[in-house]
Amino acid sequence: MTYCVAIKVDSGLIFCSDSRTNAGVDHVSTYSKMHSYGIPGERQITIMSAGNLATTQSVIAQIQRGLENQNEPNILNLPTLRDIADYVGKINSYEQDKHEVDNAQFEATFILGGQVGLNSDHEIFMVYPEGNYISTSFGTPYLQIGESKYGKPILDRILTPSTNLATSAAAALVSMDSTMRSNLSVGPPIEIYTYNANTLQPGAYVKLEEDSKYLRELKKEWDARIKEAFSQLPPVEWAQNWDQSPDQENIIS
Amino acid sequence: MTYCVAIKVDSGLIFCSDSRTNAGVDHVSTYSKMHSYGIPGERQITIMSAGNLATTQSVIAQIQRGLENQNEPNILNLPTLRDIADYVGKINSYEQDKHEVDNAQFEATFILGGQVGLNSDHEIFMVYPEGNYISTSFGTPYLQIGESKYGKPILDRILTPSTNLATSAAAALVSMDSTMRSNLSVGPPIEIYTYNANTLQPGAYVKLEEDSKYLRELKKEWDARIKEAFSQLPPVEWAQNWDQSPDQENIIS
Repeated sequence: MTYCVAIKVDSGLIFCSDSRTNAGVDHVSTYSKMHSYGIPGERQITIMSAGNLATTQSVIAQIQRGLENQNEPNILNLPTLRDIADYVGKINSYEQDKHEVDNAQFEATFILGGQVGLNSDHEIFMVYPEGNYISTSFGTPYLQIGESKYGKPILDRILTPSTNLATSAAAALVSMDSTMRSNLSVGPPIEIYTYNANTLQPGAYVKLEEDSKYLRELKKEWDARIKEAFSQLPPVEWAQNWDQSPDQENIIS
Repeated sequence: MTYCVAIKVDSGLIFCSDSRTNAGVDHVSTYSKMHSYGIPGERQITIMSAGNLATTQSVIAQIQRGLENQNEPNILNLPTLRDIADYVGKINSYEQDKHEVDNAQFEATFILGGQVGLNSDHEIFMVYPEGNYISTSFGTPYLQIGESKYGKPILDRILTPSTNLATSAAAALVSMDSTMRSNLSVGPPIEIYTYNANTLQPGAYVKLEEDSKYLRELKKEWDARIKEAFSQLPPVEWAQNWDQSPDQENIIS
């Protein structure tokens, strides 16, 4: 399994991915799921992948071959980010269809983001196995692929378009922590990459290894703070006597 | 969709269920998913259901018919809770098989818990569509059915076998709140039922309606406290300058 999240805020983009792949619990490996491309001053593009590893690898290989052979088109000469999403979507559905015995098994999903020129905004897209794609919205300024449910509530609570990049990175890491806690097949190293809006330059890249002191501390601190938050909830008055003598049939309004 | 959670702690059991059912977004209804049976002083049994509504209703109807006709066996005369889980499992797989066109569509899952006599512990079981079942463990003192992922992290953090019933009820409600926030098809009224270990008497029952002041406050308070907890996390030092001038290629240990 995989968990990747991309966040789009006014000041830029955050990409965060785990690196664990598995085919059964005894075939666990580490692969980076994050790939960045760019021409400084002209465009910056980051791609994250989830799903069948053979498909995601062949899609990334096709993108890279397109660059090496200076194919027309490739991701560094297409005019907009939407065109690039279309291009990746087409490669993705083609690579899956090549192994048509049972389509479902070979599905892959991508998050693609960045900025092309200063005439258009920085954006993120989720590219589906069928090749079509969606963007973020004002109310949902993030996209997730892979094991997305455990880490979703914290993103919904924290993120708005005006959240800054450091806070967005922290939200992505807390979301990743909740996911790793609940799903064994999501694991470190955790990669984080940032893009500052309208710079058209590569942003900061951080890789948190399995034994990262920061990851351990984040895990410990968040766990302690969640427990503290929970203990400070207003008392459930109607349940205070449940451990002694239960009432019956209370309708609480 | 549905979300039900049952918690087994040393001092007793907590059952918590939502009441929303849906067949498409324009066919949303309210049905209780919690059913209790008992002979005070002898046994107490609570059943919660998730899955195909026709199947869950016919299973509950079969259980009730068994009681009305004083069938041998029925859930009030079987000697142990495991026998009752077997009985419910058999009815469940039979009711699904009756509509065999496409099995998967008619699946239902149950949580069954309570206590039969004082010679055995209070327990909870999850009964699968195939009729077999599992229990809780020391490390995982709860069982979930339906939309379980959004609300799982908080249960993992808070619950241990020594948690008291009032705190367990609060954990169940916070778990339900996270689930309702992330999945439209899980909704109020929320029902909570408790069983105090070794009483063999019905416990407290609470129904929180859609406009419940308590539910609204819990939602508001928890949201505020999560945000506060998040804001108190130690600063992500290596990301402090991300909103100004990003560094590149930091490996953080």
